[in-house]
Amino acid sequence: MNIAILGFGTVGKGAYEIIKNNGLDYITVSKILKRKGSALTKPEMVDDFDVILNDDSIDTVVECMGGSEPAFSYVSQAMRKKKNVVTSNKLLVATHYDELIKLSDENDVYFMFEASVGGGIPWIENLSRVGFVDDVLGFKAIFNGTTNYILDKMTNGYVDFDVALKETQDMGFAEKDPSSDIDGDDLLYKTIISANVATRKSFSMENVLKFGIRYLTKEDMAYFKKSHLVLKLITTFDRDKNLILVMPELFDENAYIANVGLNYNYVELYCKTEGRLIFIGPGAGSLPTGHSIVQDLVRISQNAVVPIYTTEKVIVNYQDFTEKFYIRYDDGKVEIVNGMTVSELKNSTIKFIARINSEHHQ
Amino acid sequence: MNIAILGFGTVGKGAYEIIKNNGLDYITVSKILKRKGSALTKPEMVDDFDVILNDDSIDTVVECMGGSEPAFSYVSQAMRKKKNVVTSNKLLVATHYDELIKLSDENDVYFMFEASVGGGIPWIENLSRVGFVDDVLGFKAIFNGTTNYILDKMTNGYVDFDVALKETQDMGFAEKDPSSDIDGDDLLYKTIISANVATRKSFSMENVLKFGIRYLTKEDMAYFKKSHLVLKLITTFDRDKNLILVMPELFDENAYIANVGLNYNYVELYCKTEGRLIFIGPGAGSLPTGHSIVQDLVRISQNAVVPIYTTEKVIVNYQDFTEKFYIRYDDGKVEIVNGMTVSELKNSTIKFIARINSEHHQ
Repeated sequence: MNIAILGFGTVGKGAYEIIKNNGLDYITVSKILKRKGSALTKPEMVDDFDVILNDDSIDTVVECMGGSEPAFSYVSQAMRKKKNVVTSNKLLVATHYDELIKLSDENDVYFMFEASVGGGIPWIENLSRVGFVDDVLGFKAIFNGTTNYILDKMTNGYVDFDVALKETQDMGFAEKDPSSDIDGDDLLYKTIISANVATRKSFSMENVLKFGIRYLTKEDMAYFKKSHLVLKLITTFDRDKNLILVMPELFDENAYIANVGLNYNYVELYCKTEGRLIFIGPGAGSLPTGHSIVQDLVRISQNAVVPIYTTEKVIVNYQDFTEKFYIRYDDGKVEIVNGMTVSELKNSTIKFIARINSEHHQ
Repeated sequence: MNIAILGFGTVGKGAYEIIKNNGLDYITVSKILKRKGSALTKPEMVDDFDVILNDDSIDTVVECMGGSEPAFSYVSQAMRKKKNVVTSNKLLVATHYDELIKLSDENDVYFMFEASVGGGIPWIENLSRVGFVDDVLGFKAIFNGTTNYILDKMTNGYVDFDVALKETQDMGFAEKDPSSDIDGDDLLYKTIISANVATRKSFSMENVLKFGIRYLTKEDMAYFKKSHLVLKLITTFDRDKNLILVMPELFDENAYIANVGLNYNYVELYCKTEGRLIFIGPGAGSLPTGHSIVQDLVRISQNAVVPIYTTEKVIVNYQDFTEKFYIRYDDGKVEIVNGMTVSELKNSTIKFIARINSEHHQ
């Protein structure tokens, strides 16, 4: 198996190191694509994608550049040249899912994206595997290590949002511009991908309600602590209700999910016959995410059976909620509300909102 | 794919129902073996194993009878007749591992046992998958739903062992003779199987230290509660130390593992590059365990790549421990001890012992 790695940041380097150090001799890293003008410090490094595209000995392209372009052009071109694609790029997979699935079908190549959701957790593989036997009913997850780290700091250190964010950035767990994490976009991409795999269909981002933690304060956190509740930024997929919701959620302090600390990820899967399964693991990091990349390579080398996905579009429902919500308004007023309609949720005077989970006692 | 199910108890029935109800049309249940003399209420049912053995249209045998014999003879004969074997029988797999691996190699058939450990958790599959890329360093697990249910009742209900056991039996989660569960034998079989898969070798039960919960009292539990500790019956595998230990263990009440309730199973896996992964799910039950059986059938139908196992024997080390232990002696005296040698652990005046975990704060 001859591969090219596009992008040599955290994830690309992690995959490279695992291939080199863990005795995976049957995987050869032929080329590594670096940005134009950057130092080419290894013999495999090139800065021109066409060198990779036109090298017929390369059968698989590993895309770890992130972002929309040129990632989408590169992987599309690679598939048209009959190269398998493995990617960690959640934005790419969530926004171009239909086209990429179609391209991989038309060109009879693998399109794998384990590393795009859940870091080192073998989530996509296990979710996909369930679908061969069972119906996935839904899931609830912490899929963003950055915000989980921030919330952990705020819960345990009683510090304000900016202080916790700064510390998370200093630890290397948050980007300079953390918007995609703290506003929930990163979580949205990961949820769309997971819902697609769970249903073998293709979910639209249209209609998805999304709330972040940008305006969370330490006064909110003090209120939660007093009530023996712990705040997590959660994504929920409910197949029956046709619902995807990205929203902060409050759990009983003894629930498993409340005790998922640092930058860990957590996902709770509900299936018809298998019941409830929980996976917890490192949600990011060079080696764990690199491990997921290499697992996809191994599966390709083993001629893994890939489920049949459709490009049938699903648009989630707008719907009203019967749960309790914690709300802080623009003017500082705090309220616990019993049930919210969608138009109430869209009230622009809401500064911060969290759903109160009444079920997760364990 | 034509299969025969041997034994139509909890697990066999669960697998049968999933195949029939979840649209798995490519799996045909040709025969079901029932005990001699029992009522044959379905057209597929027979009470003579030779009918199955000599039916060349049956390519796969699913063994859900449990126990050592005739299970071992039946699956050995089936493999010699070039039939794949799928089993949920942990005693069979743990005690005849070498012979069964050899037989499956010699006859070029699949030998799969996902359902033998962890109920509905896809544990064997994920553990095996890690080994293609990474080194497994060890694991720590709750693999016995019966004792976890008993301990949950004792922790939350402040009742004595006999009362909790009776309630667990009434719920259908414990057998009339619960010895294999409460003395740790069930846990030992599951650990041997898991250690084999983790290392691709074959562990002996010799030298394994094993302690159960038969003599646990509500006074012990009151002591733990006061100390903010929660008791679980745990199995530990540590590859570096070459250690397998089955022993009650005390965790901080906020640790994930302390909050695994009812008959759930929990396993925490340590890997070199992937870090720490946790899997939680239903540890038993007709549909979850049946699901694991059917997953093995699906993998066979997909021509799954099976890792190369060796029959190289591993005998674990006797070793001394530096941790703290809670000990109650014959005479009722309770002591917290700092470190234990193996000969001290074998002291026959110890009535109940638990290791105190100092690391698992989360």
